[in-house]
Amino acid sequence: MKKVVYEEFGDPVTVLQVVEAESQTLEAGQARVEVLRAPINPSDLIQIAGNYGVRPPLPAVAGNEGIGRVTEVNGAGVEVGQLVLVPAGAGTWVTEIVAGIHQLVPMPEGDVDQLCMMMVNPATAQLLLTEYVELKPGDWIIQSAANSAVGGYIVQLAKARGVNVVNVVRRDSAVEDVKALGGDVVLVDGPDLAAEVKKATGAKMKLAIDAVAGATAGRLADTLERGGTLVNYGGMSNEPSALGAAALIFNDIVVRGFWLVLWFEKASRDERMAVYGALTAAVAKGELHAPIDKVFTLDEVTEAARYSWAGSRKGKVLMAPNGI
Amino acid sequence: MKKVVYEEFGDPVTVLQVVEAESQTLEAGQARVEVLRAPINPSDLIQIAGNYGVRPPLPAVAGNEGIGRVTEVNGAGVEVGQLVLVPAGAGTWVTEIVAGIHQLVPMPEGDVDQLCMMMVNPATAQLLLTEYVELKPGDWIIQSAANSAVGGYIVQLAKARGVNVVNVVRRDSAVEDVKALGGDVVLVDGPDLAAEVKKATGAKMKLAIDAVAGATAGRLADTLERGGTLVNYGGMSNEPSALGAAALIFNDIVVRGFWLVLWFEKASRDERMAVYGALTAAVAKGELHAPIDKVFTLDEVTEAARYSWAGSRKGKVLMAPNGI
Repeated sequence: MKKVVYEEFGDPVTVLQVVEAESQTLEAGQARVEVLRAPINPSDLIQIAGNYGVRPPLPAVAGNEGIGRVTEVNGAGVEVGQLVLVPAGAGTWVTEIVAGIHQLVPMPEGDVDQLCMMMVNPATAQLLLTEYVELKPGDWIIQSAANSAVGGYIVQLAKARGVNVVNVVRRDSAVEDVKALGGDVVLVDGPDLAAEVKKATGAKMKLAIDAVAGATAGRLADTLERGGTLVNYGGMSNEPSALGAAALIFNDIVVRGFWLVLWFEKASRDERMAVYGALTAAVAKGELHAPIDKVFTLDEVTEAARYSWAGSRKGKVLMAPNGI
Repeated sequence: MKKVVYEEFGDPVTVLQVVEAESQTLEAGQARVEVLRAPINPSDLIQIAGNYGVRPPLPAVAGNEGIGRVTEVNGAGVEVGQLVLVPAGAGTWVTEIVAGIHQLVPMPEGDVDQLCMMMVNPATAQLLLTEYVELKPGDWIIQSAANSAVGGYIVQLAKARGVNVVNVVRRDSAVEDVKALGGDVVLVDGPDLAAEVKKATGAKMKLAIDAVAGATAGRLADTLERGGTLVNYGGMSNEPSALGAAALIFNDIVVRGFWLVLWFEKASRDERMAVYGALTAAVAKGELHAPIDKVFTLDEVTEAARYSWAGSRKGKVLMAPNGI
């Protein structure tokens, strides 16, 4: 088998290596999964750089989610040939994974490019829309990084609930991509953002969802209604969120952060099933999807990381450990 | 009568004027109050500068809280000679105020220097300690601007509940002032604040109370336990609060703002009575107090504003409209 490992934290383009390893023998209750697709999420690269909320012990295997097919079973609960999501955080940029049978999530047959991304981004989008503010049809929300994978899912999930979204992007060239996904109002970020939002919608926002931080966070905060909520789930600007007194004190907003790992710690099994059941059905039916930019083999991981980190891609970058 | 007015927003040292005016005739249900003391709060000066959450119509009378003695009554509910707090926001840098009898809050005889500040700062301190996080004896909290009036009340109120406070100030010369008020742990703000807090206490904070904003807000946030709360009630640095992803996303903190005006809008009469009843008793008995730096007459208002805004004072600055 082959796997992508890193022995020190640093620039993924430098520290990632593809190594050969022995296949592991199955213990009772385990299954072997041939990995078909694994996405490169921004959080994967941040983790490899050593800047994530938790640092794995080194050496570490890269990749945190993926889909594969069961090739060998030692116990009951899953059949050879079944399509499954592998456990979150398993180290998925590998040709095969050995895991406990009960940790595997059986999936319907479908588009593995779309299904491999089930665990992180669609759930993040769904929870950002449901965990903080009760949204009703006709309500307005605003999001930055609208052309990111999570942003695209938010556009689709909000539309399905009748919630209006102001989509903010950082460059003109991203506007059409967001419109193609169904985004109605798309604005380019800048100092006049709050005034532009008012002009475009005539409304105050109930919820602001931010993955950029820095000055963008403050500008989103300034579009909120009194008592509105700003949720930050990423820091693409590499700057701290800059929140003015006018929003915090005089407009009584609430600022929160979202990290899927903490939701997993708190959520009951039933809550997880409810979230993933609905999302899986929607993705399997093609009602919910993310654009794919490019798929790389395991041997191309360095090029894949470089390509994924560059700002100009138009969709997700995936790894195909057993060939495209 | 005399009053301090401003006809445009701007530097208080420039725009404030003392003018003579006709005494108003009492209508039914009104009383006349001779103002004995009125504090200069930072928020008063911010309001005159035009930077406050609400802008009064111009020309406006300066000052938002004060204490006085009833000199004339047209109706029932208060006697001539009674010491009273005048209504919040009444325009208190004046020799006399005419107000509805039922808007006056009767006070016990006592130190008018201390009692004149009842409405804003002690209530702010009390609500910061009670509205956001449930604090138990032995818990740790942290506050910036510990040598401010609100900061001093927080030191005293927290101590009375057995809550431990890390007090943060911006200059070495303020450390002794906070210790004199009962502050046990006093640190000077700087880039290593979170490490200094850990060294001094070995604890994570449940609540951070901030009146400085800017980088200080981010440093306070970094001392919080997972899920801890940061409440901002002022922006002395004139910078937006700078909050890092590590605190917001990975440590799941909650960021809020506090504005007494909004609490007044939401609080029931019983809630207000409960807060002010207990605080008034404590101030009247001398258990709760703020250091007074200097008292000025109405004619000295420009000098008073200049003095109050300078960083070097050691306590509140008060106006004495009818003489010291």
